[in-house]
Amino acid sequence: MKIVIIGSGNVAYHLAKAFTQGGIPVAQIFGRNEKDLKVISNELQIPFSTSEIADADFYIIAVKDDSIADVSKLITKTNCLVAHTSGSLEKEKLNGNYRKACFYPLQTFSKTKDLVYSEIPFFLEAENEADFNLMNSIAQKISKKVLNSNFEQRKYIHLTAVFACNFTNHLFAKAKEISDSQEIPFEYFLPLIKETVDKIYKIEPKLAQTGPAFRGDEKIIESHEKLIKDKDAKAIYKTMNISIKDMYKNEL
Amino acid sequence: MKIVIIGSGNVAYHLAKAFTQGGIPVAQIFGRNEKDLKVISNELQIPFSTSEIADADFYIIAVKDDSIADVSKLITKTNCLVAHTSGSLEKEKLNGNYRKACFYPLQTFSKTKDLVYSEIPFFLEAENEADFNLMNSIAQKISKKVLNSNFEQRKYIHLTAVFACNFTNHLFAKAKEISDSQEIPFEYFLPLIKETVDKIYKIEPKLAQTGPAFRGDEKIIESHEKLIKDKDAKAIYKTMNISIKDMYKNEL
Repeated sequence: MKIVIIGSGNVAYHLAKAFTQGGIPVAQIFGRNEKDLKVISNELQIPFSTSEIADADFYIIAVKDDSIADVSKLITKTNCLVAHTSGSLEKEKLNGNYRKACFYPLQTFSKTKDLVYSEIPFFLEAENEADFNLMNSIAQKISKKVLNSNFEQRKYIHLTAVFACNFTNHLFAKAKEISDSQEIPFEYFLPLIKETVDKIYKIEPKLAQTGPAFRGDEKIIESHEKLIKDKDAKAIYKTMNISIKDMYKNEL
Repeated sequence: MKIVIIGSGNVAYHLAKAFTQGGIPVAQIFGRNEKDLKVISNELQIPFSTSEIADADFYIIAVKDDSIADVSKLITKTNCLVAHTSGSLEKEKLNGNYRKACFYPLQTFSKTKDLVYSEIPFFLEAENEADFNLMNSIAQKISKKVLNSNFEQRKYIHLTAVFACNFTNHLFAKAKEISDSQEIPFEYFLPLIKETVDKIYKIEPKLAQTGPAFRGDEKIIESHEKLIKDKDAKAIYKTMNISIKDMYKNEL
C-alpha cells in the first residue's frame, strides 16, 4: 500500500508527520515548492519530487481549495484512490478517472506548532465501502476520532470551524490591536482567553456568556464605542453586541 | 486589618475564595441575596449578613457596574478604604466620604468553574501610595501579576477583554447553533478551539490567521453565506470577513 502526499503547506506537512509518527510509510511528498518540500523531506525522511509523481495506491491532495482541481489532473493513473483534504469541496472536484474521496482533518495547522494528532477529528467520505475502510484504518492509526461524513455535512462542519477558529483568532488579533494601542502587554489577556475556552469544556457556551451586552449595560457599551477608533473593530463591536442581545432577549 | 466583601455574585464568590485560600481573612460577605450568601458562607466559612455591614478597614464592592454607586452609599464609615472591581468605572463612582480605589481582576468568573488565581492579573488604582501598597500586598498573596493602572488604561483593558473573551464566547455559541442545526456534536470542535488558543501563546494572533477570508477564497465565502440562515450569524460572517480582508489587504 503506497501513499503519496501532494502539497508542501501546513496540512501536507502535518499529515506527513502524523502518518510517519503513526507508522504509516509515506512513499513521496510531491509539490511545486522545492524549498518547503526539502525541509519536510529532511525532517521526516520522506523522498520528495517537484517533477514526477510516484506510483501509489492512495494519493492525498493537501493543497489550497482553489488549486485542488488543477493539481488533481496531474494524477493520470486510474486504478488508485485520490482524496482531497478540504472541508468545503465535493470529492467530485477531483478531476481524473480514479476513485475519489475526502480525507478532512478538522484542525488549524501551522508548521511551527506541534499538535496532538490523536485528538484531531477526521471526516472521511469515499465512493465505496472498501475505500472508506482503507482510509478509516489509516486515520485510526493517527486519531481516536474518525467519522464518516458526506459533503453536505462537511460544509457545515467547515462553516462552524470558521466561526469557532478563524473568527476567534481574528478577534484575538483585533483585541491585540486595542491593547497594543495603549501599550498594555497582550500576555495579560492570555489567562482570560484560556479560561474562556476552558469554560466551554464544562459549560455550554450559550450559558457561559458574560459582558456588557449580555448584561444590557448600555452605558459601558456607549463608552466603549467612543474608545474604538478603528472602523472594522467598531463594526465588529456593534455586530457582536446586536447578536448577543438577540440571543438572550427572550430570557431577560 | 478587617476586610468585607460586598456582593454574592461570581466575582464576589471568587474573590472571597481567593482571599481565603491566600490566607487573607474575610470578616464578612454582605449582600441582598441571602440564598447565594449562605452558599458562599457555608463553603468558605465566612460570616454573612443581608442587613448590617460589619465594621472594616477595607471594603470590596463586587457587584455589577450599574449597582456600584448605590451600593457604595451603604458604607457610612469614613476612615476606611473602599474599592470596586469594575474595569469600566472610575473609582470616583464610589459614593461616600472614604478613600476610594479600584481592585480589578482581569478574568471571567463562573461559580461552577474553578480558577487558578495566581495567573489572574489584578489592576489596582488608589488615591495614595499607602492605599495602593495595602491593596498590592493583598493582591500579591493571591496573584503573581499585580499592576498599577489608571482609569483611562483600565477602560481599554476592559474593551480588549470584551473582544478577547465575551465576543469569543459568543462566537462559540453561534458556532454551536450551526453544528447543532446539523446534529454534529460540538465536542468535535473543542480540539480545534483549544489549538486556536494554544497557538497564540506561541504565535502572534495576526500571524496565526487562517481561513477562507484570509486566503481570499471568494467561492467558499459565497457558499458559506448561502448556508447561513440566521440573520445575526450572517451579519457576523460578513463583518468578520471584511475585517480579516482589511487586516491583510496590504500584505497580499
